[in-house]
Amino acid sequence: MFSNNHDYTPAQLLVLGYLAVIITGTILLMIPAATTQSGGLDIISALFTATSATCVTGLIVVNTSTAFTVFGQLVIMILIQIGGLGLMTMSTMVAFIIGKKISLKERLLIQEDLNQFKISGLVALVRYVLIVTFVIEGIGALILFLRLLKDYSFWKAIYYAIFHAISAFNNAGFDLFGNSLEGFTGDIFINLAVIFLIILGGLGFAVLAELYNKRDIKKTSLQTKIVITISLILIIVGFISFLALEYNNELTMGNLSFGEKTLSALFLSVTPRTAGFNTIPTGSLKSSTLFLVIVLMFIGASPGSTGGGIKTTTFGVLLITVWSMITGKRDIEIFKRQLENEIIFKALSITILSLMLVVLVTMILTVSEGMDFLPVFFETVSAFGTVGLSTGITSALSSFGRLMITITMFAGRVGPLTLALAFAERKRSGVYHYPKEKIMVG
Amino acid sequence: MFSNNHDYTPAQLLVLGYLAVIITGTILLMIPAATTQSGGLDIISALFTATSATCVTGLIVVNTSTAFTVFGQLVIMILIQIGGLGLMTMSTMVAFIIGKKISLKERLLIQEDLNQFKISGLVALVRYVLIVTFVIEGIGALILFLRLLKDYSFWKAIYYAIFHAISAFNNAGFDLFGNSLEGFTGDIFINLAVIFLIILGGLGFAVLAELYNKRDIKKTSLQTKIVITISLILIIVGFISFLALEYNNELTMGNLSFGEKTLSALFLSVTPRTAGFNTIPTGSLKSSTLFLVIVLMFIGASPGSTGGGIKTTTFGVLLITVWSMITGKRDIEIFKRQLENEIIFKALSITILSLMLVVLVTMILTVSEGMDFLPVFFETVSAFGTVGLSTGITSALSSFGRLMITITMFAGRVGPLTLALAFAERKRSGVYHYPKEKIMVG
Ligand SMILES: [K+]
Ligand SMILES: [K+]
Repeated sequence: MFSNNHDYTPAQLLVLGYLAVIITGTILLMIPAATTQSGGLDIISALFTATSATCVTGLIVVNTSTAFTVFGQLVIMILIQIGGLGLMTMSTMVAFIIGKKISLKERLLIQEDLNQFKISGLVALVRYVLIVTFVIEGIGALILFLRLLKDYSFWKAIYYAIFHAISAFNNAGFDLFGNSLEGFTGDIFINLAVIFLIILGGLGFAVLAELYNKRDIKKTSLQTKIVITISLILIIVGFISFLALEYNNELTMGNLSFGEKTLSALFLSVTPRTAGFNTIPTGSLKSSTLFLVIVLMFIGASPGSTGGGIKTTTFGVLLITVWSMITGKRDIEIFKRQLENEIIFKALSITILSLMLVVLVTMILTVSEGMDFLPVFFETVSAFGTVGLSTGITSALSSFGRLMITITMFAGRVGPLTLALAFAERKRSGVYHYPKEKIMVG
Repeated sequence: MFSNNHDYTPAQLLVLGYLAVIITGTILLMIPAATTQSGGLDIISALFTATSATCVTGLIVVNTSTAFTVFGQLVIMILIQIGGLGLMTMSTMVAFIIGKKISLKERLLIQEDLNQFKISGLVALVRYVLIVTFVIEGIGALILFLRLLKDYSFWKAIYYAIFHAISAFNNAGFDLFGNSLEGFTGDIFINLAVIFLIILGGLGFAVLAELYNKRDIKKTSLQTKIVITISLILIIVGFISFLALEYNNELTMGNLSFGEKTLSALFLSVTPRTAGFNTIPTGSLKSSTLFLVIVLMFIGASPGSTGGGIKTTTFGVLLITVWSMITGKRDIEIFKRQLENEIIFKALSITILSLMLVVLVTMILTVSEGMDFLPVFFETVSAFGTVGLSTGITSALSSFGRLMITITMFAGRVGPLTLALAFAERKRSGVYHYPKEKIMVG
């Protein structure tokens, strides 16, 4: 695979691969048999939906449960699974199945996609990824099935259980209920099953593999320590803030029991990592709550996972750098390890490029759509973070607006730095260094 | 001076010094003779005004021209001059006047305040700062005086010219007209004089000194090159965007002639650097325009200047780092010079701490004030950047809201990193380094 493309860099191949999947999905969703409307879906909506599914975002311009046939829904489900597992994992799986050898070039590509730094063990990791995915999705689907049997027929319960387990583990946020999980606000079974799928899907496969294999907690990698620490902090801060902010909001959780409030706040703090399901109506949240959700969506999930955003580790590196500067440390240190300069520069670049993308798209959409600022800002960050939460403006977007959000979802999934790398001409650095000169900052 | 405080760090002394000036100002403004209202100003409003003046912000809760007597206005003008020049410059001036020697400890303090890295030549710099300030303010005041004579009596024209020249050069944004410069929207004299004062005040004294002294452009320092480049980019991008965005907005520049539109757009692109004057009503700007102004206010002016924000050089370092990462350079280079890692870490820390401060305050105010999101976000960034632009909500803020904005203005003026340094316990790094370990980001 890709063996004829000797001139392309891994970053470029990745961008092209995702584009190919999205275009295929768009064509499939435009087949009249995919939709319940006569004449089939228009191209902008099909492209939007295919991108949203492949980039595991979950923003929708047409209702997944009523506008699509089972065929259309299966296309969406497969796009989600391809997008969530990553194109390279899927290609590797195909190669396994047809017994092909994995070349070094292909390994480099997988490395770029899963964001790994060691080439050895990558094939084993991919195999592991597939097993882990199907086991976790299986357990999730089973729990959902047992609960859904109460409300649905046997086959429908199976179908819904599988669809939503895949959608949750891959942090896709697509649903067949028509109103996400708002019908299950206080349902402890559905909530905990989905939360469990979202969190595990958002930790990243490298972390999952390590948590499963390692017995000695002292030997845990720096990566896993940072991912777990930051994820926990984000969930706890979100949970407490959301409970306090929305406690008396009658449009969201104001009329619920304390237990249901707790469950809703927990769900709301987990879903920006970057699942996109909601159990309380997003459009009714207070401005301050929406703003905090925006911040959490921007940070997103952990690297090498099914989720989007700038990633928990990127956020962690920023915090660690700030802390080291404040406490006057010479090295940037955490957990008795030193971070390399390049990691910090990369974290900074990802954050700044992401901020620039989000600001630019928000500005353009505010002008083109003539909508209020906060819902547009929310929608843009949701698209960038491949989250899929919306205050409800998605289907009211103009064709131009839908294209802008489509591009933002794509940029968010591929990652702004990878995208920039795909287009940039990389100059070899010479052996010389320029002299250093200080400047003032701040 | 300060010779009894051997235990304080320069950062701590700076914070304490600004606090002392603000408290003195608050007390002076509470004297009944300072205001036209009977009984004097309440403490929250006095604290707010004194902080706004000392931090050269320009946000006001009471009208400067009608609520204050000439005595009150002179207090504000002196607080602006102290705040703009920097506490240490003022103290040094006092020391000059009384013929005192400047100790090494005091030099270190001046260094912290003016953000310099060389200790030698600091006293000369301070002397230079004073001369430059009074010469530029004098020229600005003269131009303003000649124009204001058309509308005001001789003495009032002199008074208004001096007040507004000081307010403009120090990027304070206080005015005595009651509606900022909205009465002079198309006035080319007033606009160009104020723009000239704002830009020169925002470049930073080190840059001004170099521009004045250096004849050979090739020997220009990296600092000056970055400041000029970024300032120009920000003004040009702002100018073009604002002209396009507001061209047909009848509430702002829609009904003006093309020349007046150009002048308004130019003024709007210069004032976030961080003057805070406005010639068109800020509250009537479109959402997209407000968002771009927020971004420009956050970036702010150049270091060692009278302006606030994270500073143009900080923004420049971020851009340079991103560009170096994208183009695959090993060193972070610009203008044939290499940036030291510590500069990049510092730029990153300032940016992240500032973002965190702005997000936190915006969230708190959105909850406490029950106002729309965008005006609150705008007000918070305006306070942090010591800009002083407002959509008009300042005087509607609760006492709690006023205190929050007061704290934000102070944190913005001192700088969040300096503030953090003042509170943090700095541990000496040992001679050992921890082993390096990679993690994934993005
Ligand atoms: K999602
Ligand atoms: K100002």
